[in-house]
Amino acid sequence: MDLAQLSDRILTGDRRALARAITLVESSRADHREQARELLERLRGSGREAIRIGLSGTPGVGKSTFTEAFGMMLLGQGLRVAVLAVDPSSARSGGSILGDKTRMDRLSREKDAFIRPSPSQSQLGGVARRSREAVALCEAAGFDVVIIETVGVGQSETVVAEMSDLFVLLLAPAGGDELQGVKRGIMEIADLILINKADGDLKATATRTCADYAGALRLLRKRPQDPQGFPKAMMVSALAGTGLTEAWDEMQALIGWRREAGWWERRRAEQARYWFDQEVRNALLSQLETGTARAALDRLGQAVAEGRVTPGAAAREMLETLSGQHTAV
Amino acid sequence: MDLAQLSDRILTGDRRALARAITLVESSRADHREQARELLERLRGSGREAIRIGLSGTPGVGKSTFTEAFGMMLLGQGLRVAVLAVDPSSARSGGSILGDKTRMDRLSREKDAFIRPSPSQSQLGGVARRSREAVALCEAAGFDVVIIETVGVGQSETVVAEMSDLFVLLLAPAGGDELQGVKRGIMEIADLILINKADGDLKATATRTCADYAGALRLLRKRPQDPQGFPKAMMVSALAGTGLTEAWDEMQALIGWRREAGWWERRRAEQARYWFDQEVRNALLSQLETGTARAALDRLGQAVAEGRVTPGAAAREMLETLSGQHTAV
Repeated sequence: MDLAQLSDRILTGDRRALARAITLVESSRADHREQARELLERLRGSGREAIRIGLSGTPGVGKSTFTEAFGMMLLGQGLRVAVLAVDPSSARSGGSILGDKTRMDRLSREKDAFIRPSPSQSQLGGVARRSREAVALCEAAGFDVVIIETVGVGQSETVVAEMSDLFVLLLAPAGGDELQGVKRGIMEIADLILINKADGDLKATATRTCADYAGALRLLRKRPQDPQGFPKAMMVSALAGTGLTEAWDEMQALIGWRREAGWWERRRAEQARYWFDQEVRNALLSQLETGTARAALDRLGQAVAEGRVTPGAAAREMLETLSGQHTAV
Repeated sequence: MDLAQLSDRILTGDRRALARAITLVESSRADHREQARELLERLRGSGREAIRIGLSGTPGVGKSTFTEAFGMMLLGQGLRVAVLAVDPSSARSGGSILGDKTRMDRLSREKDAFIRPSPSQSQLGGVARRSREAVALCEAAGFDVVIIETVGVGQSETVVAEMSDLFVLLLAPAGGDELQGVKRGIMEIADLILINKADGDLKATATRTCADYAGALRLLRKRPQDPQGFPKAMMVSALAGTGLTEAWDEMQALIGWRREAGWWERRRAEQARYWFDQEVRNALLSQLETGTARAALDRLGQAVAEGRVTPGAAAREMLETLSGQHTAV
């Protein structure tokens, strides 16, 4: 593969080259990894930065409909939009979200849009690294906004937050004591809570839900990276197309404030450092993934869980097993 | 040190032997670590289980006053009570919380109570492991309730939750828009939110605060380990001594339900497994703590943060540095 040529084509915004490069960073073959690293090093100096929006919401909340409507609105403002998905569940099931592009029928036919389903059949650590690298490729290809979708499963929001500039939680209207099912940890990272389906019969319920979340957000500690009034709860309707421009205005206001206050740059630097640390740590911990180590870890872990040995004594035995594999610990 | 004798004395509930054993597990000397592991293995078979209560609250909320009043109430019910502190800030400052036992004047003079300040001058990973081992020693010494206090700093609540059977968040009454400063992640782990100082002039404010938090808790997703009505927000007054028995009744109800439903045992097994995994991982990652590795990590991390190299390329260079130190990666 001619990396210089691929790199040049990505810089011109060529979507086929971009798709090919993402396939490269998704591969776990050693030679592909090496090429991917070289390609990313080549593109590092492009100086291009997109606004990276993390988006989470449980199934049924209208995430695809929202992304399509929101994306079309951005295109209408002359912006180029990429949509990526991070789906840790695909690591288990082998499936992928966004696999069916017809769910974003209009957006997928626009020349200034790029939609990429999540890679399937890989581990969460791998999904995370590849998604982060795919985001970097989209930035180099000159997209103005990159939307990184995830479903609210396990640690996926945290992972997506580490590759986003702002994080949006999409919720459906819910009446009274009906539970929303908001994962607790997500309140930690949400910058904007959007109550979708604020139309027709659901309008009144959406208004109440929005007020409930605005109240809940006020009970939490203020983060230094938040200007007055953030995190914020707002209503939108992807179906009716209402509230989308207002939501984008709020995002821009938030980003503008963070840029001026130095948070944008600081956060980007912290994220780069974070991903570097993660790669180093994952490489070290990959010693535990070999067949022998894995088997010992399972056997000793089971003994610990059953109270047959203390965690400390079992850990020492585990480390001796690893040393026996000619691995210095 | 005669470990057999120390072990026997701990099993009789001897507080001086317990204190000495905790000093042993707090030491980072290799021979002490070895002795600590052997001691814990000896005591493993005691079959004694305390109710381990994680307790968090920001400074000024009345944590010491609460712990003393709550502890005295438990003693009044014929129970033996141990109080430990996990203070990650001491890893930085070299200080320790609970260092001043006079803040629990009555409790510290009771023969059925045991109070231990947090170890100072060590790293969070170390603080966590030592605290967990200190809890195990208190259980072997026959204490019925172990209260593990922490301040709401960084990851400390999560660490304490991994060594507790239930987690209590202590808050002060706050009116209207006055921010409570609840760390967002803590909603993930709290089983009981207690609004302290529900007495005198603050009674009405406490009632409103309690209702606010009860409302916020209802907006969160139900966890399978929670019976109907949990997590719960309640009012107490450590000063007036009100609500303490009621809070203890709720804790017992929660624990009783979890025992019957199998959650107690499952959680204990998961925690043991978690600590085993942590010890193994920490040992592997300790490669990064040597002088040379630390310097390379800082240098490369800085280059990554400044955008002079991609995280992937820097990670590869880091791993080559580690290999050069005769460490198989």
